Formats: sequence, structure tokens, C-alpha cells
Amino acid sequence: MTAFTATDHLLMARALRLAERGAYTTRPNPMVGCVIAHGEEVVGEGFHQRAGEPHAEVLALQAAGARAQGATAYVTLEPCAHTGRTGPCAEALIAAGVSRVVSAMRDPFPQVDGAGFDQLRAAGITVESGLMEAQARQLNRGFLSRLERGRPWVRVKLGTSLDGRTAMASGESKWISGEASRQDVHKWRARAGAIITGANTVLIDDPSLTVRFDDDTPFLPPLRVVLDPGLATVARGRVRDDAAPTLYLHASDAKPPRDLDVQRAVAPVNGGRFDLEAVLKLLAAREINEVQVEAGATLAGAFVAAGFADEILLYVAPVLLGERARPLFAGLGIDAMAQRAQLTVVDARAMGEDQRLLLRPAKA
Amino acid sequence: MTAFTATDHLLMARALRLAERGAYTTRPNPMVGCVIAHGEEVVGEGFHQRAGEPHAEVLALQAAGARAQGATAYVTLEPCAHTGRTGPCAEALIAAGVSRVVSAMRDPFPQVDGAGFDQLRAAGITVESGLMEAQARQLNRGFLSRLERGRPWVRVKLGTSLDGRTAMASGESKWISGEASRQDVHKWRARAGAIITGANTVLIDDPSLTVRFDDDTPFLPPLRVVLDPGLATVARGRVRDDAAPTLYLHASDAKPPRDLDVQRAVAPVNGGRFDLEAVLKLLAAREINEVQVEAGATLAGAFVAAGFADEILLYVAPVLLGERARPLFAGLGIDAMAQRAQLTVVDARAMGEDQRLLLRPAKA
Repeated sequence: MTAFTATDHLLMARALRLAERGAYTTRPNPMVGCVIAHGEEVVGEGFHQRAGEPHAEVLALQAAGARAQGATAYVTLEPCAHTGRTGPCAEALIAAGVSRVVSAMRDPFPQVDGAGFDQLRAAGITVESGLMEAQARQLNRGFLSRLERGRPWVRVKLGTSLDGRTAMASGESKWISGEASRQDVHKWRARAGAIITGANTVLIDDPSLTVRFDDDTPFLPPLRVVLDPGLATVARGRVRDDAAPTLYLHASDAKPPRDLDVQRAVAPVNGGRFDLEAVLKLLAAREINEVQVEAGATLAGAFVAAGFADEILLYVAPVLLGERARPLFAGLGIDAMAQRAQLTVVDARAMGEDQRLLLRPAKA
Repeated sequence: MTAFTATDHLLMARALRLAERGAYTTRPNPMVGCVIAHGEEVVGEGFHQRAGEPHAEVLALQAAGARAQGATAYVTLEPCAHTGRTGPCAEALIAAGVSRVVSAMRDPFPQVDGAGFDQLRAAGITVESGLMEAQARQLNRGFLSRLERGRPWVRVKLGTSLDGRTAMASGESKWISGEASRQDVHKWRARAGAIITGANTVLIDDPSLTVRFDDDTPFLPPLRVVLDPGLATVARGRVRDDAAPTLYLHASDAKPPRDLDVQRAVAPVNGGRFDLEAVLKLLAAREINEVQVEAGATLAGAFVAAGFADEILLYVAPVLLGERARPLFAGLGIDAMAQRAQLTVVDARAMGEDQRLLLRPAKA
């Protein structure tokens, strides 16, 4: 086990913060940050901003120039060993003469997966990996989920009343959450490669499901995915606007209208309900790392019941809607306390008048 | 408008903290704290601990001794002018030679209600009132509610799942909240003069509704009040143990068993449901300042629907119980978003694995 110093931790933490600056733009690539330093003195740093543009290491080496010689490079992910849209970073680090590379984690991407470390070591560079690995995995949980589980990381977002209701019995549901929460949602959407919704939500709430920031923060518009077995909603809704791409998933027996001008794909449907595992695999095949589900109680509940809700983002508004209103999740199939779904609070904070909770399934 | 100094604020804040040390023991008296100081130098302080024992001012004057001469006395409530179980504090302050009295608020108690201030002023003492009055009112919200509204302050306590459920459909409900929340509840019980529950809760959950601290913190056991129209549960349950007094409220046509050895009183019942206003007035007549409702969805919902829930203490456990489980509140009668009950979060914090929210009705 390598013993990392306090300086190592400090500079890796800095690299992680840098990496996160790419959260809205690096897709489908992972976020990566790099800091090059002599002791505590930082001589160069960089982060990966967009697929096809320079990697974090290359930017940091450019900034460091000749001072990279004999320095330590802190990277949040194993440097790549392959020539993708840019040259391999391992080679660049070797050419610049760094003497030590500290990585938060190995890159499970098949064309890297230890080969970057091997190249560095072969060139006589000291390589240490595993510093703040938990934080680095957390940062790229979407990318890692796609590579390691073959499906995107799934976040189910819901706004609820204190009494666990998302809408009136009539379907009326707008503005349960406050303004601060509604703005916050855009940051979480911007992290996601896709936003999944259901046909009913399109019909009733007609959300646009786009990222809307108050400033000019750059982002890649997430793909809007509508689960619509019969393509009943394909002709309507704000999700059809030009602000972001949209994909309709439908049953094999749906009859698409002639001259339909939208992306669509067939996914397995059983008894009117999509096979969510197949849906997620289909999205992973399209290089979607992270999806955000913004749907009603039935579809949200289906993700939870199937065990695909990796995290639940809950905005709890200080309001009571009463016992006739619609439940938060439908179809959980819980009849006894022993069957309850136990979660863990990852983050809890005030969001304007609301409380925002980020929850994950508790480890058994 | 009197301009108070930073020192005035500092010392009144200290008096308020002192006052709160009587929270579990002063009932039915208000909590009162007193600090006697020359400038920033505190020469005596005290708080009212129990009805019948010395008032805060008397204890602070004892501590100050001769140094009270020419000092300022900070009191969280107007000094009393009447001889109750102890002598009038206004006279004691005059006799000790204090030159200025700063009070957080006037005491609405009929035998004081400005007479304390008048006595002090008549003796040539400078009297200023209103410093941190909001905090002082907050502290004694129970006492003030009883005097000003003729009913106790009502806190409705509930443990809920994230999806707003308090029990399974079967009634199974134990241990939704975590250990930290269950311990915290005892502090809130200890503040209350009475804990109200319903016959169904006695039958199904059989709570003891007593204060149980891990240490020897002194407290007065709150009165346990069971709303039981037909006295169906009067022969059973942990609420019948000797740890605290118990009062059964019942309909006028209930048939009490012969040689019944419990306190009971008749309260109006219409269609099987108690007139909660009458219940609260009855408790105010027994000098109950603050009640805590610990009941199921029906009774808790009735307090909320009637507008008597002055605050809701909600322990939200990170668990999902599903849409077949019992609602948080029943009978709210809300059918449209415009009828929703809007609340304000007064306090939100983590309590072990749970989130604890203290909520009050939002001002219209």
C-alpha cells in the first residue's frame, strides 16, 4: 500500500475539482483533471473539457512547459495509452520528463485499462495509483457504470410534498418545488447524457426537459428520451422543440406516422411496460453515461422497483397535498415493513424553501 | 423606539439561554432567565427552575449581592408584581437598588401585565422592554398561547418515510425513525405539558408516551391524554403505567367501568370525532401550555385540518414504504393544488440517518 503525503492529497483534491469543471461538456468521455507540481508548487494544471479536444494532461504539460521536467503529475484517471481523437497522454508525460505520476484510479476503458501505467513504468517513471479513488469513482460514476455494468448510472429526480405526493389526483402537478429547486435541476440535467420521461408526463405536464442556465455556462444538451410504447405523443410536446435532440423509444408493433422526422428506436415492451434493462443497455450503446429520470410515479417507481435507481434526487417542498394526491412512487410492491426500501442520505441541504435530498440504496 | 446596545443584546441572549434551562421543569410557569450586570461584567444570573421555587430575578439578585446596586437587570419576561407562591420580583429589584431593567417582553399574565414595569418605574428605575422579544415569545410559545389564545400550543410529531408514509396498510409501524430520532423525541416530550394520543394508537402501537432520558436531566412527566370516545382502551396499554399521570377524554355517553382508577373527563364528540377546540380548552384550563400530538394519520390529520397544528415535528427516515402504506395525514380534504397546506421550515437538520424538520403554517 502506497503511503501518500498530505501534499499528494491536496493536489489530487485540486485535480478532482478541476476535472469536475468538465461535468457538463466532456460526455461521453470521463471528466479528468491534472495538476503538475514540484512539491507543493503547482507548475501546470488542466482539465478535459470536450471530447476531441486536448486531454487534461496535455493542457497541464503545456502550462508547465520545461518545468514539467522532474515534476509529479497528479491525474484523476489513468493517462491514456492509445491514440483516439488525440495522442496518448502517457507518451506526452514521458516526453515532458515527469518523474512521478500519481493517479486516482485505473481507467477501465478497454484501450487503456493498465496500459497507460505500463507505458509510464517502462519509461522509468514512478507510478502510484489509488489516491482518493472513491472520490474519483464518484465523479465519473456515469462513465464507470457504462463501462463496468454496461448501463448508464440512473438518477431519478422527483419533486414531492412533505406527505410524499407529486401531483393531485387530477394530475395537476406544476410548481410543487420552489424556484431555487427548479433552477438547481438544470445543473443535474446538464450532467446527464439523457433525460428519460414517459408518454404520460409529455401529455400531462409537457416539460421541455432542456438545460436552461441563467448565465453562459457551456453544456452539451442532453438527449431527451420519451418512453412511448405506441408513439402516441410523437406529434406533440415541448420535447419536440429544437433545443436538444429527442429519441422516442417504442414497442415493435407501434405504427410510426409517415414522414416522421424524429429519432426513434424499438425497445422491448411487455404488458405495456418497457423492459428497463433493455432501455438502459440501448442508451449505453449510444454512449450515454448518466441518465436522469424525470417522470411520474409509475415510471419512476418502475425504475426503483427494478433496482435501477442508483440515486434518487428528491426536492421536498414544505407543503401538504393530502392523502388523495398521487404517490411519490407507484408499484413498489411493499406490503410489510421488512420489505421496505432502505436508502442512505448522501447529501441533504436547504434549497430555497425546499429540502434537497440525494439518496442511494443502502448497502445490504 | 429604544436603541439597545450590542452589550444589551449579548446579555439578553445569555438570559434567554438561561431561561431555556427550565424548559422541562417550570410548567405551568413560563421559563424566565435573568442576568445582572455592570456594563459587560455579569455580577449575578439565574433562571426559574420550578413553580413554587424562586424566580430568576431573585436567584440573580442573591448571586449579585451588594453588587446589584446601580446595575442593569436583563430579564426575559416582565418581573412579577404580585405575591404568588413567591414574593414579587419587582419589589426585590427595587430593594436591591438596580438602576435599569431591560425586559424582552411584557408578561400577559393578568396579575402582571404591565404592573411590574409600573412598580419599577415608580421607584425611579429605567425600564426598557422589547429587546429580543421575538426570541422570548418563541421560548414561551406554550405559556403565551394559553394566556393569549386560551389554548395550548400544539405540536404534531410524526415519523415518516420519504414517500410520506407512517405505517404499513396492516398498521405495522414501529421503527420507521432511527435511534437518534427516537431519542430526540424525548426532549420534545419533556417540553410539553401533555402528550395527546388516540385510542387506535394505544391499541395498535401501545406506546408508553413517557420521557426517558439517558441521564438524570430533571423533568416534569407530561400528562398523557388519550382521546377515547367510548373508553374502549381504558383497561390496557403502557399509557396506564405509573411513570406519568394519564387522563382519558371520552364522550358523555361512554360507560366507565366500575371502580375505574384513572383520571377521566368528558369532552364533546360529534360523529365519533372529538371537538378538538374543546379538548384544547379543557387542557388549557388544566394549565397545560404546550401539547405534543403523537397519534396516527387520522387524529394528526384532524389537528392539521382544523388549523390547530401550530408546528409539525417531522422525522423523515430514508426509506420507502410504497403507495399501499398509510398516509402521513388523513382527512386534509385537499383536491386541488390551490388548497394545499403551505408550511415554513423553521429548522432542518440531520438526526442520525433521518432528517428532522420543524414546520409551521406559512403566513398567508
